[in-house]
Amino acid sequence: MAVYTEVSDEDLIAFVRHYDIGDVVSCKGIAEGVENSNYLLRTTDGSYILTLYEKRVDARDLPFFLGLMEHLAAKGVRCPQPIPARNGEALRQLCGRPAALTSFLDGMWPRRIQPFHCSALGAALAGFHTAGADFTLTRPNALSLPSWRPLYESCAARAHEVRADLPDLLSAELDHLDAIWPTDLPSGVCHADLFPDNVFFIGENLSGLIDFYFACNDAYAYDLAICMNAWCFERDNSFNATKARLLLSGYRKTRSLSQDEMAALPILARGAAMRFLLTRLYDWLNHPEGAMVKPKDPLDYAAILSFHQGVRSVAAYGLDSGAGSAAAE
Amino acid sequence: MAVYTEVSDEDLIAFVRHYDIGDVVSCKGIAEGVENSNYLLRTTDGSYILTLYEKRVDARDLPFFLGLMEHLAAKGVRCPQPIPARNGEALRQLCGRPAALTSFLDGMWPRRIQPFHCSALGAALAGFHTAGADFTLTRPNALSLPSWRPLYESCAARAHEVRADLPDLLSAELDHLDAIWPTDLPSGVCHADLFPDNVFFIGENLSGLIDFYFACNDAYAYDLAICMNAWCFERDNSFNATKARLLLSGYRKTRSLSQDEMAALPILARGAAMRFLLTRLYDWLNHPEGAMVKPKDPLDYAAILSFHQGVRSVAAYGLDSGAGSAAAE
Repeated sequence: MAVYTEVSDEDLIAFVRHYDIGDVVSCKGIAEGVENSNYLLRTTDGSYILTLYEKRVDARDLPFFLGLMEHLAAKGVRCPQPIPARNGEALRQLCGRPAALTSFLDGMWPRRIQPFHCSALGAALAGFHTAGADFTLTRPNALSLPSWRPLYESCAARAHEVRADLPDLLSAELDHLDAIWPTDLPSGVCHADLFPDNVFFIGENLSGLIDFYFACNDAYAYDLAICMNAWCFERDNSFNATKARLLLSGYRKTRSLSQDEMAALPILARGAAMRFLLTRLYDWLNHPEGAMVKPKDPLDYAAILSFHQGVRSVAAYGLDSGAGSAAAE
Repeated sequence: MAVYTEVSDEDLIAFVRHYDIGDVVSCKGIAEGVENSNYLLRTTDGSYILTLYEKRVDARDLPFFLGLMEHLAAKGVRCPQPIPARNGEALRQLCGRPAALTSFLDGMWPRRIQPFHCSALGAALAGFHTAGADFTLTRPNALSLPSWRPLYESCAARAHEVRADLPDLLSAELDHLDAIWPTDLPSGVCHADLFPDNVFFIGENLSGLIDFYFACNDAYAYDLAICMNAWCFERDNSFNATKARLLLSGYRKTRSLSQDEMAALPILARGAAMRFLLTRLYDWLNHPEGAMVKPKDPLDYAAILSFHQGVRSVAAYGLDSGAGSAAAE
């Protein structure tokens, strides 16, 4: 939970005058989101989300993120839509920060994942990949394989504080991933952070996706692997194959997976586990005293990595690994 | 900023089914309020505030607080109004906590206090006092004079860590307040915490008061002294007599102040400064490592106390101290 930048009523009113959205009625900081400051703004015209981009977001990436949201919304993907100011610009300044207004997306994110959530998630992720295919801007994934070793090295001296075997485990896994990481899979714009708190539902219906601030170009199947790790493990870190099967089959109803993508899933899932294990380890070891945001436990992802290390084929994820199954699904 | 209790979508939907307010559309934790967890709930019928009462609020006081809000709203005081469930009860349980829904109050609290704010505040405080006069429940002020010495004693051994002269200053001031504290002033229900973040404005119009969780029976003029301290000192702790004059005259347009009340203001202001100095000192010395809420600096209130110690009459607050002036104002 976080609001890093406090916006005064006077600054807000001056900011909103640049938009055609009516007058400010109320504005409350939202206790969600760890990267940016988010406010729920109500005006005489409706409800909006006001986001102030804090220093962990590179301002040079904002045209990509906002452009992607506009592109996706135009293609029918349900997501917050940037609201342009009267001068046509969606990206402005407030309290010395880059800031943007987006439409308010109804729904709540699911706290306890049920199988139907995974099915709907798969369909939404495939819809996102399909809709993003002709988006013209690109952004490399700053948190893909080449970044993992330097990230590991910055933590190596203290990783044992978290668990004694962590340094050896991470070092060996990095060697393995370097050796066999697939590089020629179908790629395009990925969400790259589609955790449950970024997917809204109203009842059993998925109402939309939020938080595109890790979006980047990478292998589509890697994005799917991130989702499998985030949605298909229970709180005790046990794997739920039913949820994985529903996630994958929900995805394949909208976008088919090639045999190469299917075969690569176990290694992509190991990589996806490594990426979140490393960033959580870094945050765990480096969070400031008295920080408002409690870091997430990196060891959840060590357990997920360990599961995938034991997987020999995509059959472990509840699917037949044969080539025909993708088309027949 | 704080949300201490996380409410799941499933628990929330089950909770809302007990009310006649439509279906849940969204629910976001609000990064404001330091005592309770507050959510902005949107349903198909409208917007509401959902409050979960955390352990710093005594559940036995909740009927007083909620009853007061109902009473005030019925009398035309603009404030959040408790929404009863279908069974007529406004106080229910959610996630193991006492919980209540209230109507959503439009407006924003002022970050930079201007003179017109103080004028409107005075009128609203007098309206609150007048409207509360026939409220039948009572609640003693747990943070009035008798509580200050034990609070001081719990901090005495470490008060010098904050400022070297603080132990002597507090001890002498407590002796002085004990000796001359007025006990026979007109009393009734006070807000007792009417800081700027509890007073909403839309433009220059005061749109309502919130956060009645320190409300209690005490001297009306003491409540006014709390406001004077909270609204009429600048960020450098200098006193703004124009703001004080507008606060007091705004108040007296709706409720007149007796000569005794006027004469007591300087000592009440010292007491009000002592009350917040002591609770802030306690929080400063006792806040847990890594707490999400940064404690407020107690020394702001040492400066305010020091100002009032130099005041010889209410004339320092911008008003004529003569008896006639109250009626003539």
